[in-house]
Amino acid sequence: MRTAYQRLEERFKRVQVLRSITHLLRWDAEVLMPLGSSGIRAEQLALLDTECTAILLSKRTSVLLDRAETSIDSLPDWQKANVREIRRHWNYARAIPKRVTNSLHRATTKAEVVWRQASEENNFKLLAPQLEKVVDAVREKARLLGASLECSPYDALLEEHDPGRTSAEIDAVFQRLGKRLPGLIENAIEKQSAHPPKPITEKISKARQKELGKQIMKIMGFPFDKGRLDESLHPFTEGTSKDLRITSLFAEHDVLSGLMGVLHETGHAMYDFGLPSEWFFQPVGRDQGMTVHESQALFLEMMIGRTREFMRFAAPKIGKTFGVSGPAWDSENLYRLTTRVNKSLIRMDADEATYTIHVIVRHELEKDLFAGSLRVKDLPEAWNAKFKQYMGIAPDTDTRGCLQDSHWPQAYFGYFPTYALGAIFAAQLFETLKRELPSIMQDIQEGRFAPLFAWLNEKVYQHGARLSTGELLRQATGSPLNPDCYLEYLQGKYVDE
Amino acid sequence: MRTAYQRLEERFKRVQVLRSITHLLRWDAEVLMPLGSSGIRAEQLALLDTECTAILLSKRTSVLLDRAETSIDSLPDWQKANVREIRRHWNYARAIPKRVTNSLHRATTKAEVVWRQASEENNFKLLAPQLEKVVDAVREKARLLGASLECSPYDALLEEHDPGRTSAEIDAVFQRLGKRLPGLIENAIEKQSAHPPKPITEKISKARQKELGKQIMKIMGFPFDKGRLDESLHPFTEGTSKDLRITSLFAEHDVLSGLMGVLHETGHAMYDFGLPSEWFFQPVGRDQGMTVHESQALFLEMMIGRTREFMRFAAPKIGKTFGVSGPAWDSENLYRLTTRVNKSLIRMDADEATYTIHVIVRHELEKDLFAGSLRVKDLPEAWNAKFKQYMGIAPDTDTRGCLQDSHWPQAYFGYFPTYALGAIFAAQLFETLKRELPSIMQDIQEGRFAPLFAWLNEKVYQHGARLSTGELLRQATGSPLNPDCYLEYLQGKYVDE
Repeated sequence: MRTAYQRLEERFKRVQVLRSITHLLRWDAEVLMPLGSSGIRAEQLALLDTECTAILLSKRTSVLLDRAETSIDSLPDWQKANVREIRRHWNYARAIPKRVTNSLHRATTKAEVVWRQASEENNFKLLAPQLEKVVDAVREKARLLGASLECSPYDALLEEHDPGRTSAEIDAVFQRLGKRLPGLIENAIEKQSAHPPKPITEKISKARQKELGKQIMKIMGFPFDKGRLDESLHPFTEGTSKDLRITSLFAEHDVLSGLMGVLHETGHAMYDFGLPSEWFFQPVGRDQGMTVHESQALFLEMMIGRTREFMRFAAPKIGKTFGVSGPAWDSENLYRLTTRVNKSLIRMDADEATYTIHVIVRHELEKDLFAGSLRVKDLPEAWNAKFKQYMGIAPDTDTRGCLQDSHWPQAYFGYFPTYALGAIFAAQLFETLKRELPSIMQDIQEGRFAPLFAWLNEKVYQHGARLSTGELLRQATGSPLNPDCYLEYLQGKYVDE
Repeated sequence: MRTAYQRLEERFKRVQVLRSITHLLRWDAEVLMPLGSSGIRAEQLALLDTECTAILLSKRTSVLLDRAETSIDSLPDWQKANVREIRRHWNYARAIPKRVTNSLHRATTKAEVVWRQASEENNFKLLAPQLEKVVDAVREKARLLGASLECSPYDALLEEHDPGRTSAEIDAVFQRLGKRLPGLIENAIEKQSAHPPKPITEKISKARQKELGKQIMKIMGFPFDKGRLDESLHPFTEGTSKDLRITSLFAEHDVLSGLMGVLHETGHAMYDFGLPSEWFFQPVGRDQGMTVHESQALFLEMMIGRTREFMRFAAPKIGKTFGVSGPAWDSENLYRLTTRVNKSLIRMDADEATYTIHVIVRHELEKDLFAGSLRVKDLPEAWNAKFKQYMGIAPDTDTRGCLQDSHWPQAYFGYFPTYALGAIFAAQLFETLKRELPSIMQDIQEGRFAPLFAWLNEKVYQHGARLSTGELLRQATGSPLNPDCYLEYLQGKYVDE
């Protein structure tokens, strides 16, 4: 007879298969779906979600979970961790009644449409009432989650994207970054002004850019028999290790941005491909939240991709695939183009050094919104003040300010910190990597990526969700989260060197 | 309080949404999916199928269906028809236990793989044991279905693809065709030999062929905000009117085949788009089986597309889009190329006049297989004898004979007749159309397709599955199924004219 634990696994296999369908429908919606089909797509996604929740919250699952917990001491470590992860998913699903999910869904659907218009017309007042409704719904969700998880509402939102993370911890890290980064950015800009890179003037077709991306992904070991590269409005990764699809955005006049998008998403993808396959259908076999996921993407894009060594590897391929040559295309110039520091007002265009400022601004505003000390209607003023404080500049319009992306109208609150925490995590990994494999940058320069991914597999991928982010980091690098390591990395790359 | 009927509708909405997901997964598998992802795709499709069957066969559905039938007199006609359709789906699902579905699935999965090898190696003996298992599983399914529907096993298989059709009816029709077609084909070949068309020698890129296809689909009224055109190994149509995707196969050296594929699938698509949208989520709002579906595809491809008038409309567009000119590309030559009669051994390459011979051969062999008078191992010999009988020629290898397509290894038995019945249905529609709208071919020549589709909408599309194929045909044309109308059409187009 099968044990309660085994039967619990069977139920989660069904959830996981349903979720893998959801991934595909979402990917299709961004890449291929005819615009007029969004109505039925929403119904399909809602039904799959309902089915997953029904399995998760069924009486049968509860009983099996209770029983598995009762006899948890007899289970091997992996299964213990799996029971813990299942309970975590169960807590989440149970804490939030359908009424709240529905009102959140209604609010975000409307807010997204209004945001588009408000952004086009530079009219925050148009969005404010809708965004207010989104924030109200998220507040309700955060309150319920917080009560269930016994933490503050905002911490409950953080927990959703990065299990175990608290805002106290983030505050300490961000305060340190907030003090050091503005000066570091000024110094980097000052230093780089002596050697401005030559701009690229050639237009390169999207087809060739995609070809280059696939070429480099292939050399890195992306398994094209289980994945694809396509194009979409924003780069993203969607799917599972059994069918994983990444996209980038290819613009004819901005080839490096397309390539960096490919590297970023390949970082996400290699993590997913490296997750423990024997646990594929179980929660413990999934990734450990967005901080680890972003760390892998940023690691490949920033620490590997935006280096002289990577560019020495890539430049000949770029020249041949695009049919270009000349000083703008030499590896040193490509390196300078991809590490150019600019006080950009737009997060999506930000360089490695200034990106974290964008995150800190969002996080501080979010905290104030959820603490009740900031009202939605006062967002533009608060936004501009924060930018002035950290960057010394402020946007001239809200379209280039607090209306610049749709994350908030889509209810992504508590999500932004994972970008910055991921960058810190990545910097700590990078420091360890260079210590443990001193020849790694030479390998990259010569196109050998196998040692890199074998190392990441050992340190990160193979653990799935068995270890918390903190345990994973400490086991991989020997240290807890350390913003100074990240600051040293930036200082070395952008100022001292 | 909602009535039993209303609650039944709600349950079927869930089934329909799940099935619309299935369509998309199938489309993706043929068009985009990485090859190594077929395992998880199979699990996804199986799970969706299990969920649909569970809803259909749940105790709750049975109770509601019984209640709806008890008070059926109080329902409007459409809902009466819907209850009848629901009962039909229910009967099917209930008649076949999971054990049979599973063994059929196992047998076909294996047979398809073996078929590929057998076909490459021209080795029918390799396939025979696997095909035997498929036939055994289909026999079991047919026996159970027949017992439930109170008809013969083979009629039960026919019923699945064309509700209400019997093999007695098909036999009468096919005997008439089998007598007349061989002579007609000889006469057509004889007549055409006096004016052989000039072959097309230019190679045309797939991208341009696709562009032409989209151009013509757009003029015909294909709503691209709810559908797409892509490429796959075999042309097909997949989806629903809310998200419908067609494909064609584009070969650089065979541009007319790609275009005819587009027309064929556009015929399928326009039918789906025209189905009654107010019944979208209900069985009665779906198509009325494969005979009607094929009739719409063949109508557009053969009766509209392979005409002088269509070619006069299309030739300038072809010339401009492909950047070609000269005698091979004039409308008269394009017409002759697309109406060229050949004694082809391959069904997929067959012309309009000989296609039905292929269907008759398959149908006769299938009947013998299920009557037990033909054994799987004797198929090649029987196949070759039938071809000799009807076409005067026989294939030199089984790869070009009974191994030429994967339909039988995939358990498509009782399906082939719908191609021929669809062609007859289409010919009867065409005769009626020309009588009721005498200027229709002039409209086509001048690129006006609206009257055609408005007429098809009135006669066919808008009825969904409310009328049986027989009722639909009689209401549209005033006549029952009439092979002579089809023979006259072929005689007129290919011999007399």
